[in-house]
Amino acid sequence: MTQPIGSRVRLADLPLREDLRGGTPYGAPQLDVSIRLNTNENPYPPPPELVADVTAAASAVAGELHRYPDRDAVALRTDLAAYLAASTGVPVTVDNLWAANGSNEILQQLLQAFGGPGRTALGFEPSYSMHPIIAAGTRTDWVPAPRRADFSLDTAEAARVIAERAPDLVFITSPNNPTGQSIPVDQLRELIAVAPGVVVVDEAYAEFSSQPSVLGLLAEFAEKLVVTRTMSKAFAFAGGRLGYLAAAPALIEALLLVRLPYHLSSLTQAAARACLAHGEQTLRSVATLVGERHRVVDSLAGMGFQVVPSDANFVLFGQFTDARASWRSYLDQGVLIRDVGIGGHLRVSIGTPEENDAFLAASKEIVR
Amino acid sequence: MTQPIGSRVRLADLPLREDLRGGTPYGAPQLDVSIRLNTNENPYPPPPELVADVTAAASAVAGELHRYPDRDAVALRTDLAAYLAASTGVPVTVDNLWAANGSNEILQQLLQAFGGPGRTALGFEPSYSMHPIIAAGTRTDWVPAPRRADFSLDTAEAARVIAERAPDLVFITSPNNPTGQSIPVDQLRELIAVAPGVVVVDEAYAEFSSQPSVLGLLAEFAEKLVVTRTMSKAFAFAGGRLGYLAAAPALIEALLLVRLPYHLSSLTQAAARACLAHGEQTLRSVATLVGERHRVVDSLAGMGFQVVPSDANFVLFGQFTDARASWRSYLDQGVLIRDVGIGGHLRVSIGTPEENDAFLAASKEIVR
Repeated sequence: MTQPIGSRVRLADLPLREDLRGGTPYGAPQLDVSIRLNTNENPYPPPPELVADVTAAASAVAGELHRYPDRDAVALRTDLAAYLAASTGVPVTVDNLWAANGSNEILQQLLQAFGGPGRTALGFEPSYSMHPIIAAGTRTDWVPAPRRADFSLDTAEAARVIAERAPDLVFITSPNNPTGQSIPVDQLRELIAVAPGVVVVDEAYAEFSSQPSVLGLLAEFAEKLVVTRTMSKAFAFAGGRLGYLAAAPALIEALLLVRLPYHLSSLTQAAARACLAHGEQTLRSVATLVGERHRVVDSLAGMGFQVVPSDANFVLFGQFTDARASWRSYLDQGVLIRDVGIGGHLRVSIGTPEENDAFLAASKEIVR
Repeated sequence: MTQPIGSRVRLADLPLREDLRGGTPYGAPQLDVSIRLNTNENPYPPPPELVADVTAAASAVAGELHRYPDRDAVALRTDLAAYLAASTGVPVTVDNLWAANGSNEILQQLLQAFGGPGRTALGFEPSYSMHPIIAAGTRTDWVPAPRRADFSLDTAEAARVIAERAPDLVFITSPNNPTGQSIPVDQLRELIAVAPGVVVVDEAYAEFSSQPSVLGLLAEFAEKLVVTRTMSKAFAFAGGRLGYLAAAPALIEALLLVRLPYHLSSLTQAAARACLAHGEQTLRSVATLVGERHRVVDSLAGMGFQVVPSDANFVLFGQFTDARASWRSYLDQGVLIRDVGIGGHLRVSIGTPEENDAFLAASKEIVR
């Protein structure tokens, strides 16, 4: 087979920026395994009625694909506001909402507007590994702050670190990925109060949590609180790529200065709206998944695993002497879970009852 | 009506990065006018067969929207490579291709990988106004270089400026937006040869051009040449948001280090593939539009306008004593064109024959 044009050039030959040299691309292995419990997807496929409505939505916009989309996605943001208002009781409106291609793009826009060279963003690790990566992509200095040994957040210590380091942005993930714990609103209030800059509370897994949303604090902290969400998890829309945030209208004005124009396609806007219209039905899977999470946690504990308490649709567990070898052992049994790089631990997403059964059966065979 | 939560906060109250203060969001006015010739869209809507295939493509992926998309968009990149290879005769393969949500995201990824603080990007102005904006978004210093008074590029002078300023990236737009001229490949070779860093040749309007693609130089300059394209114009897919590039495989490896994971939705990948499958049919509109461009140019010239030679699907013309007032006068006649900020000039996209007739009729009434 002939080589692609330019194969003689190697990455090291290119004038890549210095801090990227030697790096490897982010991302869980996308392997062809029957049981995939590695990326916290919702295991329940869209029901036929939703497939029909997404199809109809695509059909409705397909005839206008030669035109640019609504640059400000007003209809979609209106629907997102209605969902958030109904589910949290906080009366946000279209002017409080912003949307992008996944919460990663939301986070990147926030860091472009409020971070950058000479500015800092602080997060409590281990947490969502894209936070420091996107910070680096925008040249924002990343300030890692610790959690307790059991991965919970020591609020008093966290408040002290925020006050001491005075970061331009603070990222707080609740429930935290990949460890699973939520932070009660009263504790979040203490942290937000002490932060000098923007506070991003990443609620990607909020629908699975027993804690109320931090959105209730928006009126109190409108000058700095940003609540980010995604449709990838509870809404079972990972393939559709739709992240969003709620904040004061002025904060969204700020993002308009850095967003790439027409960033959200007509198809994305239409399909996300169709998905939101089926929200009530889709979100019924959340209760099922929470029930299954309890079962998985109890079963793992019964086998003698150490299980980190989880308020999300995944569970971090251990203790493995060689987590990488154990991950491979799960894979050999046809179950793909995630090695998130926390020593002695692995993370499993909650699947369907059948998938969880397979995972639990494999767990009995695993050498720790 | 009640105010949105947080309305008391104003943009000036937020800790926005300093260089964004006082800015206004990019973007042409999206006005509800019957004749829209302001954003260089293809005026021909997708034909019914393509609408049907985009719908079928959406339907095919809708049942798997709970899963993340192919992070590397391999099938789509394969199709894009096949299109480029067939249309240019240059045998690029999937390993030479990369895709993102519009060419804006492609450009942002290039600047994230090869630009940034302490690095420079050079462009010949007036040109695509997003180049300096995206450079700023990545904190890359923008170096504006001049064109001749007639907006053509003086190759010898351009080569001298590149050699003197030694930018990390050079942007060359051919055909150039908003002025319309292409640059012959021999002249591009001179510029690429002298550039010390990455050279991005933005061929967003290549299908409308009488000049061959610069892609033929990829083998010669694999260590630095990047050719960017979009499906927004000739492919009539502006609403679908699909930009792409061709380069050496190592350059695409570099972009994997900065791209947001899962940046391209399943729907985008599927719909773009459906659109490419209808490429032959869609691209027939290109000949029609080029014919109409000749007619519009001749008619404007016949009315005494100064028309800049165009190799694209738009025309820059003047001379107006007050371009803003003339733009408004077109709008008052129901024709939306573009004030691109070039003194004494306006830009009109080539529309359907009926739209061009309306534009030409309005032009007769315009005060210069």
